Parts: sequence; structure tokens; C-alpha cells
Amino acid sequence: MINIGIIGIGRIGRVHGESITKFVKNAKIKAVADPFLNEDGKKWAASLGIENTYTDYKKILADKDISAVLICASTDTHAPISIEAINAGKHVFCEKPIDHSVKKIEEVMDIVKRSGLKYQVGFNRRFDHNFKAIKDAVDAGKIGKQQIIKITSRDPEAPPIEYVKVSGGIFFDMTIHDFDMVRYLSGSEVDEVFAVGSVTVDPEIGKAGDIDTAVITMKLANGATAVIDNCRKAVYGYDQRAEVFGTKGSIAIGNDSNSSAVLSNESGVTGEKPMYFFLQRYMMAYAAEINSFIDAIINDKPTAVNANDGLQPVLIGLAAKKSVDENRPVTIAEIKKSFDL
Amino acid sequence: MINIGIIGIGRIGRVHGESITKFVKNAKIKAVADPFLNEDGKKWAASLGIENTYTDYKKILADKDISAVLICASTDTHAPISIEAINAGKHVFCEKPIDHSVKKIEEVMDIVKRSGLKYQVGFNRRFDHNFKAIKDAVDAGKIGKQQIIKITSRDPEAPPIEYVKVSGGIFFDMTIHDFDMVRYLSGSEVDEVFAVGSVTVDPEIGKAGDIDTAVITMKLANGATAVIDNCRKAVYGYDQRAEVFGTKGSIAIGNDSNSSAVLSNESGVTGEKPMYFFLQRYMMAYAAEINSFIDAIINDKPTAVNANDGLQPVLIGLAAKKSVDENRPVTIAEIKKSFDL
Amino acid sequence: MINIGIIGIGRIGRVHGESITKFVKNAKIKAVADPFLNEDGKKWAASLGIENTYTDYKKILADKDISAVLICASTDTHAPISIEAINAGKHVFCEKPIDHSVKKIEEVMDIVKRSGLKYQVGFNRRFDHNFKAIKDAVDAGKIGKQQIIKITSRDPEAPPIEYVKVSGGIFFDMTIHDFDMVRYLSGSEVDEVFAVGSVTVDPEIGKAGDIDTAVITMKLANGATAVIDNCRKAVYGYDQRAEVFGTKGSIAIGNDSNSSAVLSNESGVTGEKPMYFFLQRYMMAYAAEINSFIDAIINDKPTAVNANDGLQPVLIGLAAKKSVDENRPVTIAEIKKSFDL
Amino acid sequence: MINIGIIGIGRIGRVHGESITKFVKNAKIKAVADPFLNEDGKKWAASLGIENTYTDYKKILADKDISAVLICASTDTHAPISIEAINAGKHVFCEKPIDHSVKKIEEVMDIVKRSGLKYQVGFNRRFDHNFKAIKDAVDAGKIGKQQIIKITSRDPEAPPIEYVKVSGGIFFDMTIHDFDMVRYLSGSEVDEVFAVGSVTVDPEIGKAGDIDTAVITMKLANGATAVIDNCRKAVYGYDQRAEVFGTKGSIAIGNDSNSSAVLSNESGVTGEKPMYFFLQRYMMAYAAEINSFIDAIINDKPTAVNANDGLQPVLIGLAAKKSVDENRPVTIAEIKKSFDL
Repeated sequence: MINIGIIGIGRIGRVHGESITKFVKNAKIKAVADPFLNEDGKKWAASLGIENTYTDYKKILADKDISAVLICASTDTHAPISIEAINAGKHVFCEKPIDHSVKKIEEVMDIVKRSGLKYQVGFNRRFDHNFKAIKDAVDAGKIGKQQIIKITSRDPEAPPIEYVKVSGGIFFDMTIHDFDMVRYLSGSEVDEVFAVGSVTVDPEIGKAGDIDTAVITMKLANGATAVIDNCRKAVYGYDQRAEVFGTKGSIAIGNDSNSSAVLSNESGVTGEKPMYFFLQRYMMAYAAEINSFIDAIINDKPTAVNANDGLQPVLIGLAAKKSVDENRPVTIAEIKKSFDL
Repeated sequence: MINIGIIGIGRIGRVHGESITKFVKNAKIKAVADPFLNEDGKKWAASLGIENTYTDYKKILADKDISAVLICASTDTHAPISIEAINAGKHVFCEKPIDHSVKKIEEVMDIVKRSGLKYQVGFNRRFDHNFKAIKDAVDAGKIGKQQIIKITSRDPEAPPIEYVKVSGGIFFDMTIHDFDMVRYLSGSEVDEVFAVGSVTVDPEIGKAGDIDTAVITMKLANGATAVIDNCRKAVYGYDQRAEVFGTKGSIAIGNDSNSSAVLSNESGVTGEKPMYFFLQRYMMAYAAEINSFIDAIINDKPTAVNANDGLQPVLIGLAAKKSVDENRPVTIAEIKKSFDL
Repeated sequence: MINIGIIGIGRIGRVHGESITKFVKNAKIKAVADPFLNEDGKKWAASLGIENTYTDYKKILADKDISAVLICASTDTHAPISIEAINAGKHVFCEKPIDHSVKKIEEVMDIVKRSGLKYQVGFNRRFDHNFKAIKDAVDAGKIGKQQIIKITSRDPEAPPIEYVKVSGGIFFDMTIHDFDMVRYLSGSEVDEVFAVGSVTVDPEIGKAGDIDTAVITMKLANGATAVIDNCRKAVYGYDQRAEVFGTKGSIAIGNDSNSSAVLSNESGVTGEKPMYFFLQRYMMAYAAEINSFIDAIINDKPTAVNANDGLQPVLIGLAAKKSVDENRPVTIAEIKKSFDL
Repeated sequence: MINIGIIGIGRIGRVHGESITKFVKNAKIKAVADPFLNEDGKKWAASLGIENTYTDYKKILADKDISAVLICASTDTHAPISIEAINAGKHVFCEKPIDHSVKKIEEVMDIVKRSGLKYQVGFNRRFDHNFKAIKDAVDAGKIGKQQIIKITSRDPEAPPIEYVKVSGGIFFDMTIHDFDMVRYLSGSEVDEVFAVGSVTVDPEIGKAGDIDTAVITMKLANGATAVIDNCRKAVYGYDQRAEVFGTKGSIAIGNDSNSSAVLSNESGVTGEKPMYFFLQRYMMAYAAEINSFIDAIINDKPTAVNANDGLQPVLIGLAAKKSVDENRPVTIAEIKKSFDL
């Protein structure tokens, strides 16, 4: 049984808290910490049988009985707390992205490497039953040599404009998951990126210096071409589809719905919309990623999503951003070079 | 090239006329006859390049250049004209049903047998691409030994009440196609029938002594059980589905639509309704059945749907009617016995 | 927080134990009892943090802190333990069927009525997201007046022949769920039953006096006709579909699969099989039914599936059995009369 | 009744000949011409009741009774015969592309404009029931303002390498239809193109200086982004899908199959592959485009696909080719400027 501390009990911290309690057999949440801890937070922790609630996460790091932490606080704290936690001898599960700064991610990677401790990044979609079915088919050779990879990723609604302003931009806040999916499904690195961005949802997003719609084309090291299409708002719900096409066939996944019910009437033949958003669609994936993390600790296995997996999508995101800004294809090599990588 | 005469150019006669012109290579319509022939009918015939138009079908029977006739006149004429045509040395394609009277069908069967001429009954669904795909899978052994056969057959709207009154009842007007499908898909005869009938669409149909909704269960000679569900009115269109379930799997077909378009919006994920009715859904099947008939003539092969295939569904229909009337299972043997068959 | 005791920790008892621990917020399992309690059972109970493990269920009934019990022992114990538990002042959740004997079920119903305690029967499918979607659409008037109800229910494999021999027969072991679905989806009682049974899966089942394949037609009090098709073995997995057709449209559900992945290759376009069996397909339904039971206790509401809901499908099953045996339609009134109901 | 001459009776010429005979009411093929006319060609013409067969197409142009010609000869003859035919006073239906040379297309456009005659280019997909359903939904405002357009277009097999060498390259031989679809579905011109090309099917195609796999991103004048993915070979058949996503929803189409049959067995749930290739998938679209052409002549309406619709995809193709060669986005303006357009 691994004792866990959760740092940050906002939305995603609570998702993990609840799914660990329900679905993760070999882990127990011993403490949570949040600088804004209030009565509601304490009540929530009590309802899950969590022993300790702190405002200061350092108390978690000081607890010798706790061997792993989940960092679910705001993005700017991910890298510094990661480093502190590793230095305190804790295994770390860190929500994505590790940081927007390549330099800071490198520092984390470096210290993780030297520590021998487990470090996992929160790319939950790798644990979704649908995406995993594609990956399994690709790895089993069912589609042969990869030729084209397509990912559709659209949110049901744009975040508040205040959030957009501090989000780091669509490529780091939203597409970063899709960049990870390209690497995960293909098992290949990305060589070059060309991105088209536009503002078709909300002019305020444009005024904030961001885009809300994007189509990103990538040349992969394995010779395949990948294309992602993104939009901040699809009125019919969270649209998360993917296809890998290869020399022996194609494997594709669609959306999940709340039921398989189909109504046939004078208006047509109507099924349910996709599940509303990530908390619905990926509920079980959140549990699976923590189970995988705990398994890596207990059985001393590499984590399924390591710190480098946290770094690469950031590099791709930087290339995508530069591609939109300069309207040209940008290589990952160029981005790496700019950071002396 | 086979010269054809069409007797009766109401709706179904014209469907055949047009589909033969378009799709049947080795046949030419030389003449049509209809007691109610008018200017519109003559114009229609001219548009298809048909040489002769008569009010009296006997002129077609007298034409030595015509070797085959299509009997598309009203049901009560099917049997007598069949006999006359056979006696005149013509191959006959006769719309279903041959007759509601078992005795008259037997007479036709008898004379056909002695003549050596081809006789085909218009069970068009046997030539539908979807039903044929089931049949092919069953014959190829893909589903193993048959266990359960299910047929859904619902019309988009009930016929006029005046038609209902002379239709012979739902089992002879509508279900007869489904009875044929049970025989076709299973390759087996029906042993026993239990039918539940109700009036859920239009009370006028009930007042006319008919039912508009039915569920018919059949025990087949091959050990499988078949079930048909019928309704005179499905608001979403012509619903024509089937499934054969067996020891190695199940093969099922759905409806055809005008397009594969799917609209996703706030109301759900909506595809098109099934094609409106039989003229749409079975357009190509009408052509295929005549091609098959012509092929049987030219290459002296048995017709794909012979006179006995016209008789059996009538026997099943009589059993179904009796089953509803007496609320008990009725064997085909009992029906046969009543006709000394 | 309601303290619960589970009587019987075989397969279904453990399913409930685990799903309550994960998904049922306001209940705590305080004790389990099983006459065959062994080390494995104790270990299992400990893993869920269950305080007490007994061989004698009477210890659960004697525990004043326990206010509700789940009866998951063998079918023959359902009725007597139900009565004992009610007499001990416990709310009861009882696995289906309450009993094969109508008389015993009546005794249970009678004592439940006088006690004022909650009694729920384990018809889990009522809590399945798919069946519930049909029910919601029907109740919302989306399909208008019901005309035809169709249920397909096929298991992925037949149970061991030893089990078949004591199962009470297919209608009480398997179809009973489907009879309940007919009542649930229609909101109507069944008036008359006609059933066709056959042995197409395993001749041993026939030798044991049972059938393994059935098609059951029912006339409902609301004027609709229902039809169930059953088979003990479908090689492609657990097949659980339903459709309600009415004057305004039809609502239908299909199977759930482990993923939405579709592989297109030279062999065709292939999706996953249905989930293997009830533990997979109805995992969340088991949690939902207990949540509903706990909710009924806490908020003093009628249970969603009461003792009468346990009785009616048994009456329908008796009618179905008699129908197969005597090859005639059998009314529920006839069955009731034989029990002086 | 419009008398037609077909110039070129290779594969596509015969497709038109047969579909006109079957499906085009107001047209009659009076003559065909082909420099390689042989016995087989004559026999084919006779089977359709075509009066005259020539080796020299000028005889068709000289026939006063013929008011329209279909140019189905090799691509290099399209522009010169178009001009000759227009000069001879014939309406022209010309297979795509008009030419690979922008200059020659302009000459055709110029002479067409001055002639007042009808000129239609053979972009048959505009007449496909599925693509048309998207277009109708877009035009009806069902998806709101367009944001992303996606087209998948994959052939079941690569053409012979000798054909590839003279095809003008994938963008002019294959993608040209997809470029037309982008314009048709969006109702907008393309502003800028970025294309990624690769050789993943057959290295011989690469040696011939062509690519066999491509992903092309386009910025449209209406603010939407379009993306096409192409491959010369999909083992599962002709893959022709499209989606238009907008502010009110998304409309998508899939492939057509030979039947709706679905086989469920131990291997999964398997439907049929897409129809093999364009002759199967677009059979009815070929008829519809000629009907539209004849309708434009008879009712003096603009043709549905005019000479400019023939020019624009060539410009987009040139931009795509340049984009691959120079690995940068290329504007249509740049291409136009190079031709003084």
C-alpha cells in the first residue's frame, strides 16, 4: 500500500482523489494540501477518509509515511514543487504541462534522472480505452506501416477569457494532449510542424493574442504524416476522435456517449451526443493513469509517461506557435537548437 | 433478345416498364395492355419506345413475337391470365400473390408444370442487395446452424381504407413478403404459426375486419424459430430489417437511406431516415428480378421464385389468419389438409 | 450512513461488495456472512475494510448497527432469509428471483407490507444506462403510444449442465430479467404469453428437461405486443438489445463494447464484440441499484423494484413454461387463478 | 431531346454512354468517335443503339443534328477539342481536367464566354448523393459559419507506374477532385496552400518524380481551414469521406457499401468494405452530372460546373505542387500572378 499526498485540491486534484479512492487498490491518500484550503475542502477530504489536510504542501513532503505525491496545483508550481518533492525523496505524478519553459522542464528531467525516483506526467488520454485500442492495434501490426495519423480534438466550450489569457495559448493548453497522442499512437518523434490558426469562435480570444481553431500538420520521423484539427467549441460536445491509416488498413475510434439509444422519428435517426467533456469521457482514464503510476512504484518499472514525454509536446507546441506566427513549417530541430538541446 | 408484353400498367407495371428499359439488357418491351389505357398511358409507353399499346391483353397473348408476359393487373386476374398466357405458350412473370385461393394457385402450378414454360412470382425482396447478403452468408455457412430468424417489416403509412377492404388482409397484402423472406433466408419450410394481431394505427382498419399490427412466430422444419413484426405505419419510413442468428454468429441488415450524412449538433447525432417506401428501397431489386427471369428463359434455368414459392406464403398467411382468429398455434399441415394438399 | 450486511459472498455478493465500496456513498458494509466462509473470503472482506465476517447470517440480523441486508445466497434461501430479516427489522435487498414458488413470494410480500420496511429485488438491468435511456424516452412520450416491444437477450455461453438442472429452467433463470424489462419499459402488465422453446445449443440441456432457445410473444394490458428472443449461447458475446416502437417513433438500444475502435482492412470494417457478459455490461448498473436502494431507505421512498416486481415475472415465467408444455397461449389470469391470486 | 456525340470511348466514355442510355431522359447518343475504334467498340455502340461510329471526331462536330458533345478522350486533347467543338457550335461536357496548362484553360474559358454555349467540367462528385447532402446542409445553414473542412480521399490501388508517369502528378490526377470538393462544399475560394507529400505506397512512384501520399492544408477566403488527406492505396477500398464543421454543428458523410449486412461472430462485428472504386461509388453521380448538363442546355441555365470551376483546382494543384517542392505555404495569388491572371 503506497501512501499518497495530493498537492492542490482544485478540480483535477479532486478528480484524482475520488478516482483513487474508488479505483486504485494499492494506494491510500494520507494527506492533501492546498493554500486555499477551506471548510469545503476539509469536508471533501473527510468524506474520502483522508487523514490530514494542510495549507502548506511542505508538510506532505516532510511526512515520512508518504512515498508519492500528485502535483495538481497551478501550472507555474509544477516544476518547482516537482524538484522539491524529488529532493524530499518522493515519487511524483505531475499534471501536464510540467512547465511552459523548456529550461525548467530540463531541470526537472535532470534531477529525476539522478534521483532514481518515479516521475509521471498526467497525459491521461494514453489510458483511455479507445485511444489504447488504437495503440494496441498499431503495436500488433494490424495496420502495417503507418502512413497518415489524424486526430480531431474539439472542446464543448471555450474556457473563460481570463483563463485563456494565462493558459499559455491553445497549443500548450489544449493541443498539448493531441501532440502527446501523435507521439503515443505513432511511437515516433515529430520532425517538423506546420500550423494554421484562426479565430472562429470568439473574437475576444483573438484580442487576447490567442487562436481558437487550428489545423496542425506534422512530418514524423517514421515517415508518416500527422494532422490535428482543434476547436475550442463544438456545440455537440467533446469531440475526441483519431485514426491511424497504414499499409494494411486503418484503425479509428469515435466518441463515447451516455447511452447507445437511437430514436427514429419523422426528424431522422438520432443518437446521443458525445459525452460532455473530459471529466465524463476520461473518468476511467484518470483512474488508470494513477494505477499505472502506483504499479511503476511498487514493481520498480519505468513510468508509462515520463518527464521526456512531458518535454516533447512542449517543443512541438513551440514549433506550432512559431509556425503560426511566421507562416512557415518549423522543425523541432530548430526549436531544440534554440535551447541548446 | 426476349420480347416482352406487360399486362397492366398501373404503378407496379410502370415500375417494371421503366426498370426493364434501363437495366434489363436482354429484354425489349414490345407491347403493353391495360383495360383503362388512356392518353397518359400511351404517352408513357411512347417515352419508353414501346411499339404497341392495347386495351385488351389478349392481343399480347396473340403476338407470336412476344415470348414472355408480365402480369401486373389486379390480383383477381393473376391466376386466370396466368393460365391463359401459359396456354398461349408464353413464359410468365406474375406479381404476388398469384391468388388468395389455394385452389386457383394449384391450377396454375399444375398447368405450369405440364407446359415446361417458365413461371416466376414477384417476390422482389429476394433480389434486394441487403437480403441477398444475408442469404449469401447463410448459404456460405457463416452463421452455422440457424437458431432464430427475425424480420421487421413496417410500412411508412397505411394504405387507403378502401384498399384495405379489398386487400385480403395484412397477412396476404403485406406479411406475404415477410413469409417469403422467412422461407428464402432459412431455405426451410414453415411448420407452425402463431400470430398476434392488433389495431394500433387506425380503428377504421379494425372496423374493416383487418389488423394493422402483428407479431408472428413460426416453427421451421429446420428447427429454427422465426419471428416477424409488422406495422402498417412507422412515422420514420419503410423499416425493413432482418437477422439470422446461428451457432457460429449472426448476420443482420439494416435500412438504406438516401445518404450517409450525419449531422451533429445540440440535439444529438442525426442520420437520415430509411428510404421512404418500396419503390425507393427496392428499385434495383425490381430490375434484378426481371433480369433473373429473362436469364431463366434464355438459359433454360429454373426460375428463382417459382409457383410453389407463390403458394407457400399463402398457406402460411392462412395459418396466421386462423391463428389470430382462434388464438392458437396453427400448423401448415392443418391448412394443407383442409385443401387436400 | 447506512450500515449494511451482505449474506452470501459468492460471485454476486462480491460484485455488490466491491461496487458498494467504490460507488455507493451513503452505505458502509459492516459485516458479511457465508456458510462456506474461508480464508479467501476473509481476505476479500479485509481488502474492502469490512469489520466482521461470519459463517452464520443470523449474527448479521442480530447486529443492531446494521439496518439493511443484501441477500446474495442461493435462491432457495431468498424467501426464508427475507422473512427473517424483515422480522429482525432490516431493510432487504434480495437478489432475483425471490423464489420459484408463488406462495413463498406472497408470504414475503405480505410480511414486507406489514413491516413498513424497504424491500428491493435485484433486477439490475433497470439501472443500466441503455435500458434507462429507452425508459426515459418512453416516459417522455417520445415514441407516442406503444405498439411493439422487442427484446433480444442472449448469453455468451450456456451455464454448466449441473447448474441448468437446478436453475428452475431458462424462463426463471434467464428470461426472468427480460420479463422484467417488458414490464419496466412498457409500464404495463402482461396479459397473455405464447412461447416457443427449442434445444439448439446443447442436447444435454434438452435431456435435463430444459430448453436453450426461446421466442416469447406477449399481449400487454396497454395494447402493445412484446416479443423476447433468448439463446443460451451467442458466440459473439452477451447480446442485450431492445426496441420500443410506437406511434411517434421507435427507440432502440444496442450493445456496449470495450472500445469504439473500428479496423478497416481487406476483410471488412470490424468493430469490437459486445462486452463479454453481465459482470462487464452491467457493472455500473449493480452500483446504481444499490444506490437507489440506499436512497429509498434514507429518504423513505418506495423502492424502485418492489416485491410485486419480483412476483410478476415469475407469473409470466410460469405462463411461458405452460405455453411451451401445452403449445398454446396462456393468460396470466389463468396462472393467478391457480394460486388463488 | 438533345442529340449527343461522345468523343473517346475508353473507360469513362463508356461509363457515360451506358449511364446516359439508362438514366438520362432527354438525351440520345447519336454518334461516338474514337481513333482506336475497333470491333469491340462498334459492338458496344450497337448494343446501346448508337447510330454512328467514327474514328474521326470531326465527323461528330460536322453533324448538324448533334448539339452537344462529351469529350472523354485523353487529357491532352481536352482543350483543343473543346475549342474546336465550341467553334462548331456544340455545347461541351469535358472530362476533368480541362488541361494541366493554365494558359490553355484560359483560352477555353475565353472562347466559351464569347460563344454563349454551355460548358461543363466532369467533376462528378458534386452529383454524388452523399457529398450533395453535405452541401445542402451547409447551404441550409445547418452548421452555421464554417470553421474546418476535412476530406479523406484514398484510392483502393495505385494506377500502373506508366500511367503515373503521364498523369501530371497526384495533385492533378487525384487530388484535383478533392480541391473541387473544398470549393464546392465551402462555396469559397482557396487563398493559400501548404502540402506535405510522401512516398509510402510504392518507391517506383517516387522514382517517377511523384508522391503517393499527401496531406494538404488550405486557408479559405471565407475564414475556414480545409484539410485533405490522400493516399494512392487503401487496402480496404475507395475511401471517400468528408466533414464540414461549423459554429452550429458538423455534417459528415461516410462511405457506401454494397450492403448493410453486419456479421457478428467470434472475430468481432464486421460490416462490408466501402465500394471498390469510383465506377461503383459514383455510378449514379455520372448519370446525374449529364442530366444536369442536358438540363442546362434545354432550359438555358448556367452549368453546375463551369470552365472556371475547371481552372481553380488546377491553380490549387500548382500551389500544392510548389508547396511540396519548396516546403512552404504558397498562395493562389502567387500562382495567378505567375500567369498574369
